Order: sequence, then C-alpha cells, then structure tokens
Amino acid sequence: MRSMKRDRSQRRAQRLESPLLKRPFRQPRNSMAPMEILSPEQLSRLHDASMQILEVTGIDFLDDEALAIWEKAGAKVDHKRRHVWIDRGLIMEAIAAAPPSFTWRARNPAHNILIGENAITFGPSGGMVYAANRDIGRRAGTMEDFENFVKLSQMCPDLHFASWEQVAPHDVPSSVRHLHRLRAGFILSDKAVMEAAHGRVITSDNLEMARIVFGDLEGAPVIGDVINANSPLIYDDRMLGGLISYARAGQVTFITPFILAGATGPVTMAGALAQQNAEVLAGVALTQLVRPGAPVVYGGFTTNVDMKSGSPAFGTPETAWALIAGAQLARHYRLPYRGSGSLTNAKIPDAQAAYETMWNLWPAVSAHTNLIMHAVGWLDGGLTASYEKFIIDAENLAMFAHFLEGFTVDDDTLALASIDQVGPGGHHFSTPHTRDRFQDAFYQTALADRLGYETWESAGGWDTAQRAHQIWTAWLDQFQPPPLDTGVQEALNDYVARRERQLEGINLYD
Amino acid sequence: MRSMKRDRSQRRAQRLESPLLKRPFRQPRNSMAPMEILSPEQLSRLHDASMQILEVTGIDFLDDEALAIWEKAGAKVDHKRRHVWIDRGLIMEAIAAAPPSFTWRARNPAHNILIGENAITFGPSGGMVYAANRDIGRRAGTMEDFENFVKLSQMCPDLHFASWEQVAPHDVPSSVRHLHRLRAGFILSDKAVMEAAHGRVITSDNLEMARIVFGDLEGAPVIGDVINANSPLIYDDRMLGGLISYARAGQVTFITPFILAGATGPVTMAGALAQQNAEVLAGVALTQLVRPGAPVVYGGFTTNVDMKSGSPAFGTPETAWALIAGAQLARHYRLPYRGSGSLTNAKIPDAQAAYETMWNLWPAVSAHTNLIMHAVGWLDGGLTASYEKFIIDAENLAMFAHFLEGFTVDDDTLALASIDQVGPGGHHFSTPHTRDRFQDAFYQTALADRLGYETWESAGGWDTAQRAHQIWTAWLDQFQPPPLDTGVQEALNDYVARRERQLEGINLYD
Repeated sequence: MRSMKRDRSQRRAQRLESPLLKRPFRQPRNSMAPMEILSPEQLSRLHDASMQILEVTGIDFLDDEALAIWEKAGAKVDHKRRHVWIDRGLIMEAIAAAPPSFTWRARNPAHNILIGENAITFGPSGGMVYAANRDIGRRAGTMEDFENFVKLSQMCPDLHFASWEQVAPHDVPSSVRHLHRLRAGFILSDKAVMEAAHGRVITSDNLEMARIVFGDLEGAPVIGDVINANSPLIYDDRMLGGLISYARAGQVTFITPFILAGATGPVTMAGALAQQNAEVLAGVALTQLVRPGAPVVYGGFTTNVDMKSGSPAFGTPETAWALIAGAQLARHYRLPYRGSGSLTNAKIPDAQAAYETMWNLWPAVSAHTNLIMHAVGWLDGGLTASYEKFIIDAENLAMFAHFLEGFTVDDDTLALASIDQVGPGGHHFSTPHTRDRFQDAFYQTALADRLGYETWESAGGWDTAQRAHQIWTAWLDQFQPPPLDTGVQEALNDYVARRERQLEGINLYD
Repeated sequence: MRSMKRDRSQRRAQRLESPLLKRPFRQPRNSMAPMEILSPEQLSRLHDASMQILEVTGIDFLDDEALAIWEKAGAKVDHKRRHVWIDRGLIMEAIAAAPPSFTWRARNPAHNILIGENAITFGPSGGMVYAANRDIGRRAGTMEDFENFVKLSQMCPDLHFASWEQVAPHDVPSSVRHLHRLRAGFILSDKAVMEAAHGRVITSDNLEMARIVFGDLEGAPVIGDVINANSPLIYDDRMLGGLISYARAGQVTFITPFILAGATGPVTMAGALAQQNAEVLAGVALTQLVRPGAPVVYGGFTTNVDMKSGSPAFGTPETAWALIAGAQLARHYRLPYRGSGSLTNAKIPDAQAAYETMWNLWPAVSAHTNLIMHAVGWLDGGLTASYEKFIIDAENLAMFAHFLEGFTVDDDTLALASIDQVGPGGHHFSTPHTRDRFQDAFYQTALADRLGYETWESAGGWDTAQRAHQIWTAWLDQFQPPPLDTGVQEALNDYVARRERQLEGINLYD
C-alpha cells in the first residue's frame, strides 16, 4: 500500500471546488416508467407459488412471542417444531394494513425522506468487517473508521442516511457497539439513522436513544433496520426480537431474505424469487400483526452462487433480474421496495468494482427501488468498507440524481433563435444562450478525469482510486458536525455510560 | 508499463475454460418495454423544432451532386452558399421510404444480423489513433494492432461485427489504409464488416472488394459506415460522397451528427436534440432521394462539453439523456437506431473507464438501441483502443446478452417440490433440482474475481486489467482464421495490389 503525499494547497484547491458537496440535499424521483421483466402472468405464478410455500411447506419462527402472535392470528402453529403454516387469506389481509409509503424523520426535518411512490433514497453500506483505503491498507474496522464513514455520509448530499452498521468498530466491545454507533450517528449527523435490529435488548436501547433525540416516537418513524430471513424459510430469535420491538414502536423494518440461488434457495431464478416472496410476505405480515400500519419495506437481496467458488456472486445478470422482479412484486403488494447499490466481489476499487456496482445501481434505479442500501463503498462481497470506493460510488449517486431530474423542453431550451444565429459551421461556445446557462448547464464531475493525455500523464497519471483518495481526505478535513442541543448530547452520553456499565461482560451475540 | 511474465501453462488453463468464447453467436432481443424519457408532447415539440430548423435555418451540403439531388426533389437550394432549406413535407415523405429494419449480411450467413425491431447488435470501436495494452504501453496504432482487434472481434461471440476503422494503421499510407483494413476484415473474420464512407474513391474501392466476396450486392446490404454531420448544420463533401455512393449501392449508412451541447450545438439538451434530429433527418432523407428503400440508421452521438476543459465529456448523465431521447425519436420515425457503448474519458481501464462505459451501455440497451457501436475498448475520448478494456467491455456485452435472455417461470423452475423437500434451514446445493441444472444455470464470468481475499492476494492481488491482459493474449494465441475460398483471397490481394499502385502518392484525405 503506497502512502500518499498530502499536499495541503492541492487539498485546499480540491476543497474550494468540490462539486459533490455543493449539491443540494434532495430526493430523486424516477418519473420514467419502471423497468419490468415479469409479464403479468409470470408475476401471478410467482405469487401463487409463494402462497403455496407458506401454506404447504411453512416457515420456522424461532421465537415464542412470534409463534403466539401467529397462533392468535389464526395460523397453524407447531410449537415443538416452532413452525408455522400461513393461509394466503391471512397473509394478504395482514399485509394490506402496511402503508404504501411513509416519511422517515431525521433529526433535521430538512433531511426527512419519503420511502415509497417513485421516490429513490440512497443509504450507506452495512455489515462490513474491514475498512480499507490507500493510507491504511485493509484492517479490521475501528470506531474511527465508523465515525469517518458517518462523517462522509453526512457530507454527501446524495446519501439520504448517514448512520448504519457501516463497519464493525472492533475496538469497542461487541455488546455495546450499537450504543457507540448510534450516539455517533446522532452527534455527527442530522440525517436519518438506522441501527441494528439485533434482538430485544439492542432495539430497546436504540429506541431509548431515539427518544432522547426525538422525544415521543409516535407519528412518522425515526429509526429502523434490515430484518434478514435466515433462508431457507427460517426467521431466528434475534431477528424476530428486533422485528417485534421495532414494529411495536412504529419504527421501520425492511424485510430482506438473503436468497442465494443454488445455495439458500433453488438454482432457478423463478424458484428463488418464489421463496424470497414467501419469506418477505411472512415477515411483512408479522409486522402488521404486531402493529397494523407499522412502516415496513419489501426487501430483495437475491443473487446467485458462483459456480466455481461456491460463494455469493454480486453484480451479475441474475442480480439484475432479481432486483427488477423484486420491485415488481413489491409494487404488486403496494409495498415500498428495498434493493442494493454497490455490491461487488472485487477486492479493490478497480474496473470490476465499478461495473459490478453499475449492474446493481442501473437496474435498481430503473426499476424504482425506493430504498437502495449499500449504495456506497462495498468491496469483497460486503466484507470491506472502502473509503475510495465510497467516493467513486458517491459520484455515481450524484450522476443518477442529476439524470433523474431530466431536462426541460420549451422555447427557451429549444434555442431555435440561437441555432439560427450560429448557423452552419458556427460555434455555440460563446453565444449569449450558452453564456447565460453555462455555469449550471451540466452535471459537474468531482472525480472523472477529462484532461488531455499528456496533461493527465504529467500530473502523475493517477487512476480513479488515487483521485478518490484525495477527495475523501479533503472532505474529512473540512467536516463540521451539525448543531445538536448540548442537553441532548449529554443525555446521550449519560445513557451510553449507564448502559455500558450494565452490559459489561454480557454477550448479546451468543 | 510493467511487462507481464507470461506463463504458458497458466494461459493454457485460461484457454481451456474461457467462458466468453464458449458462448453462441446470437443477437439479443430486448423484450422489456423501452426506457423512455420524453413525454409525447416533448417528442412532438422536438420534432416541430427540428422541422423549423430545416425550413427556416437550413443546412449546408458541400457537394454539387447532393445539391442537385435536393433541387430536383423540390428543396430550396442556394448553390453559391451551398445551402438547402427543406420543407417538412419533403423530409417526411423521403424518410418514409426508409426500411424500419433490414438484414446486414456477413460472409458467413450464420453471422447475418437484423438491424431494427427490438434486436440489439454490438459493434467494435472506430476512429482510434492509439493502441494500448500492458505490454506496449500506448503507441500510434499499427496494422498489427488493427489485425489483432479484428481477430479479437471475430472471436468474441457477443460482438456482431468484426471489422471497422478500429485503430489507424500508421505503418500503412493513409490513402490505402481502407484497402488493407477491409482485406484483413474479410480474411480474418466472417462476421459483418464496416468500412469508411470517406468520399467516392474509398467507398468505390470498398464496394468493389465487397463484390469480390459477395458477388452481386443487390438484396440485403453487406457493408456500411457512419456518416457524420459536421455539426452545426453542415454535411461536407467527403461524407456526402460516401453517403451517396453507399446509398446508391443499397448499402448501409448510419447518419450520426456529433452534437456537443455547448459547442457544436446549444448548451441545452432540448436544443441539442432538436439540432441532432434536424441533421439526422436531412441525411436520412438524402439517402432515400438517392435510392428509395436504401438501408439507413438514425444515429445519435450527442453529449456535453466539459465545462472545465472544453473537451467532450463522455459517459455523463447528459449522454444518457441523449441516448434515450434519440431512441424515442428514431422509433417515432420508424428508423433503426444507432448509439454507442464504451465511451469514456479515462486514460486507463480503471473504475472511471468502467462506470462511464456503463453510463452508455445501460441506457443504450434499455432504450432499445439497435446498433451499439464503439461497444468495446474505447479510452481517452476515443483516441485510444485498449486491448484490456476490449476484454472488460466484452464481458459486459456477454452479461447484457445473458440478462436480455431473461428467465423462465414454470413448474420446473418454480421448484416447489424441491423447496418443500429442503425445508427450513436446509441447503439447495446438493438437491437433484440443483445438480441437474448447475452447469448452465448462471452467467459464467470470464473476468470477475470471486476468490476469497487471501487467495486473491496470494495469487498476486491482480486488478481487472491484469486479468484482462491474460485473457486477450490467450485469445490471440488460439486465433484461427475462418475458412475463405482461395480464389476470393487471391482476388482481394490482386485488387489491393493494383489499387495500391494506382493510389500511390495520392492523398485522399486532403
């Protein structure tokens, strides 16, 4: 790993003209028709197949409270096997209570976001073990890495969330990591937060800390997290504890099985999607049995196994199929849809990392994915959070936001008088029509090299990752935490200190 | 530039398992609805604006024969200014004669392709000055480079053309380069060919050489090339000579203005597209006045100028807008549509090169672009043909072809019995349903790294470009020219030899 000479004046220049940071916080809308891959008949067959899975095969719910809820709702429950068979009437009635869209509140109301309709939100990555950049190489994540990613997420206008389980802070004991992460999320950012739905103890802490910041949690939700099915056909006690306590508090769950076609689901995409749909709908229904109207999102994370290595393959044509079909299924049930953005198997932010990311982002955006998680910084199948890839992906999110704004067709933009005046062989560079609009006419890249070859070469012949390194270091240099009431900050500190003492030596991840 | 140790046994292994080469030659169809960005009203306004440009502002046609054709058709012609005003009735009547789709014949009929409908074809890059790879660095292109790119194009099943002006062979005099390129294209490949429409002399040679290979050229076309407008609003004599002689012979032209918003067209996308549409339709109409029914393609190559450097910016959100809107305009006129694939400003095949390419390929494929030129190997704004990027892009073309095949939803693929048998917590890896389908279940990557981190690192920690280098060298090692009748080959050699003597010292590019 080369270490980079940091030239202060160069970085100051970068700072003054960082086009990404000048962008407004805004939620893109996709006003084009959603990309669709399933015919109505195919969609109907997938629906029927998933109903049959729930009715005939059933699902394990490894949690007594969940089993009791299902029994009370009228499902057939085998308590010994911890297994539930769910009739399609029950499923469809339960999920009908879920809101088709909802507002997710941030502590700064200007950063509130809409989840649903044709709105698109980009969220950071979660679950990474390692942090990597050109200075440190790859290392087990630390609290400093976590905070850095929250800072970069707060600064990036095209990211709509700042705090999630972006990288594990290995220098903090595992049972109190959620406390430290969420406190950092609230202090370093005023965007919407997510935090682990890992069982009842952790979610109870998360809800308490959210109350310190927001007061009463009733009304639009303020916190949430992914609920993974343990595919095939299992919800475990940790996830169910998280699902029940978030749903009961009216907070957000995005129900997301990890179906790996050929491993945790059938090798055929139709079967994998039928199983995904069965698992998602069972989880969504449970949230509505806990609390009708609780905000919940249909999550898809289906891809294929790599046939040579047996490991998950990301950014494949199969990933794209599953993303698009999943969006159609979610629309069919009038549920917001969650997909993913920057998934890749690449170990470094190179060409493979970039094109595999686009094999997620393009279909996700085109299919009207409402909540695109892992939108920045993934590497190595989700093991590594890359600082440089964060910037590369952030540039692409900004490009998508600009792309989705579209362009105006009117007398002014058709510019017929100017075209006539310039005439054959003329030049539009210096016309009044161009001069008046030049500053904001186009997407302004922060990262792309558009120099002549010799200029690029004599400036060091940098690749994209080297430029990205320069950008994130400049961003961190100028980070300013958003204002937060001192009393709130002290209350958060007190809560964390108290719970640290109480949780000392307890392993919440047994 | 590092030179690579070529390990023969490693390359032999690569050869045995090169999944890209095992793919069938097949034309993808996009059976999804085309991505659309223009409302019907916006499309109608763009049409009206372009008609007004042709009627009020008019276009220069810098060729006497072209002016005579326009005059005879009833357009208003100013011979002194070499300027033409075209009434919308004349334009629309002329373009109505153009075929909505046509077959482009290859010398191997199994490689014939359909241009139009929802069929997608991928073509190689054209117009490059330099060739670059990890062995040679970047150098002015040679005949060997040209031949190598034809060989790679012939071998790549997802490329539907093999020969175009892929890289300038600087070791061949410029006036006879077309002869050497086209001979190499016919000898080294049995796929469809393109060759320069650069004036009457060169196209006449190209047609003669095509007759040697195909005999009579009547019927479906066998050769063609891009016709660039010299934007704004000029067709020069070289392009018009090429247009007229290809159209008269019933061969293909793809009429493609290079509109650079803010330079060769208005800074606003609506104005740039109105100008593009006016220029394209004037060119298409001329082909139909020359020969009604001549195969012709609506070409779009509109993007924006980079505001800092003043140079063309490729792979931008604006590029994507123009690609999608251009496809809608072409559909409106029932013309096949040509866009581009691998455009980028990056100097090396890194992350920027990959993501900018995807900012062309995704919208191009989604919008039903029938003819995607420059689909492999572009670098540096089209100056450089990269061997490594050729392979990276070829992998993505294969991924698109697989993606567009879609997946089946039926009893067999829904796999309900297998899902039931595996049950909660089981594994699909070893089921009969998986075992029976595993070999061909998924897209097989040739290039992507899906190893574990330590395995990847201990194998050298290669990036995508290093792996791509290994692949193209292995491909070239095993290239076999497709069979060609000895008499045809001799006739081509004789023709080239005779014309070389005749063209010696003549500069066709004055």
